[in-house]
Amino acid sequence: MKNEQWERRIAYLGPEASFTYLATKGLFPHERLIPYTTIPECIEAVSKDAVDFAVVPVENALEGSVPLTVDYLYHEANLFVVGEVLSKIQQHLMVNKAQRNNWQNVEGIYSHPHALAQCHKYLFYRFSGVTLHQYSSTAAAAKLVADNPDRCIAAIGNTSSAEKYGLEIVEHNIHDFHFNHTRFFVLSKQNIRLPIENSQGNSKTTFMLTLPTDESGTLHQVLSVFAWRKLNLSKIESRPLKTGLGHYFFIIDIVADENESMMKGALEELASLGCTVKSLGTYYTYLTPE
Amino acid sequence: MKNEQWERRIAYLGPEASFTYLATKGLFPHERLIPYTTIPECIEAVSKDAVDFAVVPVENALEGSVPLTVDYLYHEANLFVVGEVLSKIQQHLMVNKAQRNNWQNVEGIYSHPHALAQCHKYLFYRFSGVTLHQYSSTAAAAKLVADNPDRCIAAIGNTSSAEKYGLEIVEHNIHDFHFNHTRFFVLSKQNIRLPIENSQGNSKTTFMLTLPTDESGTLHQVLSVFAWRKLNLSKIESRPLKTGLGHYFFIIDIVADENESMMKGALEELASLGCTVKSLGTYYTYLTPE
Repeated sequence: MKNEQWERRIAYLGPEASFTYLATKGLFPHERLIPYTTIPECIEAVSKDAVDFAVVPVENALEGSVPLTVDYLYHEANLFVVGEVLSKIQQHLMVNKAQRNNWQNVEGIYSHPHALAQCHKYLFYRFSGVTLHQYSSTAAAAKLVADNPDRCIAAIGNTSSAEKYGLEIVEHNIHDFHFNHTRFFVLSKQNIRLPIENSQGNSKTTFMLTLPTDESGTLHQVLSVFAWRKLNLSKIESRPLKTGLGHYFFIIDIVADENESMMKGALEELASLGCTVKSLGTYYTYLTPE
Repeated sequence: MKNEQWERRIAYLGPEASFTYLATKGLFPHERLIPYTTIPECIEAVSKDAVDFAVVPVENALEGSVPLTVDYLYHEANLFVVGEVLSKIQQHLMVNKAQRNNWQNVEGIYSHPHALAQCHKYLFYRFSGVTLHQYSSTAAAAKLVADNPDRCIAAIGNTSSAEKYGLEIVEHNIHDFHFNHTRFFVLSKQNIRLPIENSQGNSKTTFMLTLPTDESGTLHQVLSVFAWRKLNLSKIESRPLKTGLGHYFFIIDIVADENESMMKGALEELASLGCTVKSLGTYYTYLTPE
């Protein structure tokens, strides 16, 4: 019997059977998982102590950063990354079992915009002319197909969506690129580190950086701080500051612990250069099994 | 009377009254404008000589790069940027005139995902709990509202959409950030430059760059090539290469002409460093009047 007092609550981007649910369930198999409808709601749930952690998608190997997550963490929230989850993404075409012999005539295909984009070539060549409908999640699209057995429509999503909503997968692995992972952040109000068994690779530090001016050469100067120390950037992406075209902040991942002396020196020098640096902390990686 | 033989055909991301239409009409007031449904279709129309130019959105000050445009230009197309258009984006809430006194009770709000994101705070505080529906364009959303006078729903879009579909604007300027521009590329098969009267600023060169290795310090080395020459990067953004998390290409804008000797030297050195460089050409800027 579980002791509810000690059970941790984890917010995730729902609904159940979403890719985020699968990632969250992998890392937190025994905790209480609570679905939220939007990424800001997940993040606010942690900020307001309604949950202990939140799991949200931050980056996909094909689509790039999830703008809402990155922008909300920069502009609105004050949280730390305490772990990350890497999950392989496989997309399948699924229909209501009542339509299993008629699926080649689908008149509409429903899924999350990212999933539709991930299957762009397949859809272009195989279902050119069929209307594509953007839905809030792959699981919500699967539910719509389950709820409408009389309509000849399809959803794109994962095996878990097909199982949960009793749909038939009629084409497997319709995503255009085979190497497709999504990366999730585990967020907390405390700057701690989740201990992760069999963690992949070394610890990693993420921070967000704004340049002092937009003179030529400032990004070069900033990168010099890391280059001579041989601190390896595993990621650098830019996002608009929302103050005008050409104004950016940068999300940088360094394969190092923020408490190492080289990292401390680098972060101090960045401040001296006039950069605004917001560290999201150092964390380990959980790789979901396939 | 127009001479049809000499009339140039311009593809744009439709439908009519979209933001891209307004941008295209500003730059090409007397040409034949042809709407296409998707960004890849616009780009393919130029590649296959169905049109002379295509106008597609490439970057928004709030949302960042339009991934489909950037990725398609990198992975699929072989075109040049011959001009760019900058347009101020203003979003309004509009309803069917039959619902003009009932708009505060809307049960659904329809728009393009970018427009919904641009009004995120307004919608969060003003219409929390109302379902947001992602649509292929702001104009398509306006058309839906026009076609359904009996439903209490709203669209978010520009004044031109409201006029074209006879909708009533019930709240003006509901976008969260006031400084919001979208940038459009004018694409052609020829590496020419559109002459633009009253062009804003100097000519600009855009290219796409892939780093030779992912060793630490390579991006720093690449930026050194520009820094010591005082070549100013007005933009640097990264996009995933679609070969795995952490692999990127970079879209770089330099405020300089690719035929200047400093630029030629820089591009030659990048090749020597083992970078793959794809230049999209040098071009001028058209700023649409408000």
